[in-house]
Amino acid sequence: MEVVTSFREVRDGNRGVVGLVPTMGYLHEGHLSLVKRAGTLADRVVMSLFVNPLQFGPNEDLAHYPRDVERDVELAAAAGVDVLFAPDVDDMYPERPVVTIDVGSMADAMEGSRRPGHFAGVAMAVAKLLAGIQPDVAVFGKKDAQQLAIVRRLAADLSLPVEVVGSPTIRDAGGVALSSRNIFLSTAQREAASAIGRGLMAAADAAESGERRGAVLEDLVASEIGPEPELRLDYVTLAATADCSRIETLDRDAFLATAVHVGPTTLIDNIHLERAGGGFTADRGVVLDRPSVLEETT
Amino acid sequence: MEVVTSFREVRDGNRGVVGLVPTMGYLHEGHLSLVKRAGTLADRVVMSLFVNPLQFGPNEDLAHYPRDVERDVELAAAAGVDVLFAPDVDDMYPERPVVTIDVGSMADAMEGSRRPGHFAGVAMAVAKLLAGIQPDVAVFGKKDAQQLAIVRRLAADLSLPVEVVGSPTIRDAGGVALSSRNIFLSTAQREAASAIGRGLMAAADAAESGERRGAVLEDLVASEIGPEPELRLDYVTLAATADCSRIETLDRDAFLATAVHVGPTTLIDNIHLERAGGGFTADRGVVLDRPSVLEETT
Repeated sequence: MEVVTSFREVRDGNRGVVGLVPTMGYLHEGHLSLVKRAGTLADRVVMSLFVNPLQFGPNEDLAHYPRDVERDVELAAAAGVDVLFAPDVDDMYPERPVVTIDVGSMADAMEGSRRPGHFAGVAMAVAKLLAGIQPDVAVFGKKDAQQLAIVRRLAADLSLPVEVVGSPTIRDAGGVALSSRNIFLSTAQREAASAIGRGLMAAADAAESGERRGAVLEDLVASEIGPEPELRLDYVTLAATADCSRIETLDRDAFLATAVHVGPTTLIDNIHLERAGGGFTADRGVVLDRPSVLEETT
Repeated sequence: MEVVTSFREVRDGNRGVVGLVPTMGYLHEGHLSLVKRAGTLADRVVMSLFVNPLQFGPNEDLAHYPRDVERDVELAAAAGVDVLFAPDVDDMYPERPVVTIDVGSMADAMEGSRRPGHFAGVAMAVAKLLAGIQPDVAVFGKKDAQQLAIVRRLAADLSLPVEVVGSPTIRDAGGVALSSRNIFLSTAQREAASAIGRGLMAAADAAESGERRGAVLEDLVASEIGPEPELRLDYVTLAATADCSRIETLDRDAFLATAVHVGPTTLIDNIHLERAGGGFTADRGVVLDRPSVLEETT
């Protein structure tokens, strides 16, 4: 595996179908599943590893975002990454950008409303990665549902010639969606967090059984999270995948997304509800059959 | 010359060094000089021809912008264009864009302040052309100085791997910068408009002779335009090329830009003042040694 820090070095090595997996590092099985997916779609898999300061608010956890580049290099190489693009902040932003990306109404709800400027920052970094690397395919996790929807729209609106692929959420044995931020949870908190997955699975069952009322689906999640003293529900929202607007009725591709505060950490999770035949199928993610690498490191 | 309407068709034909010349059609020698320049830099010259509705304000001249596609096809082919990319509005914008480009402070002055949303619209179309066509070089006219500066910044900030090249303004025998909108001028108006070029050339002489005061350079232009009853000066501004901010002293690469109303038409023109040795050299543009194709058609 090659490790490079400039867009030119990545592009100069491009050949065949190029697949990109953007990450902020501190890799876990969620990221590695994206690499695996990219490997089935591309001849050459590029992983980017960049903790993008533009997507962190002034009161957010940029300084404390977990980092372990040495471990990331090992995990990426073992997973089959061909090129690891690991720029410094100065490589990505030689100057503070003046011309930026406006994500418009895609950021009005959910994470976008809670984290002003977050998705503009994400969009800036992703636009640069897509423009500068010129991948044919880019694989993003469905766990970050609003981000995935925004990236799809970004690529379409800017005519970037890339296929944006969403890949299922990976969950630990307790059903908790893998996230680098999970290392901040105590054992009790992580056990409590399994209520999030339980709520989402109950809603998935209901949607697959024909429930279309957004309020009912949202309540199924909220009612699992509410009783847990370690958890504080921020929101649970049924949103249209196309534009991230809240919808009252499940009548198009959508995702049911929630954000939950656990101590100082915020966890987000969702299920995607996708039209299939006359009804909807839930993408609930995939449960890991072994302990996550995140658990080994804590 | 091939004429295509989709980005994919353009990209599928890309080989060697690809040069792009973006235009809104109604071609004149200014555009053709961009093609010539692109031809010296690239193996394959793509011209885009698209009257971009996003860059016209509600009270602007979108409906009346001059068009003559048949003539454009002939002129482009004769000039050596290899591929003419002529999309419809629906090809460029299958849906109204949600994710857009924010040009920030680059649009605060001059045309940006006079035409709200204009450069955001320009940036959107140019970003799509650069992302969708993937040229190695893109040639823009220096006549649209603020646009050129914004496109340079757009390409840098979005990591688009393209060299943005500015090419000198072409002027008619009276010194009037060629513009498709010149066909709206009466003979008397066109003669009056030569005062704009005279003012800019006087300022060019002064700058090359060591004048550094922005106000003095601006006044040299204004004092030529003022006495002409057919002309109404909108602004004359010395602006830094890097960020389009107004500067009081010529102490970095800059352009001296003016906008002048002539009846219902607005003409813009400028000279670029570029550091050379201890002083500045003015790019005054090039005077055409024959009547313009625009004069033949009116």
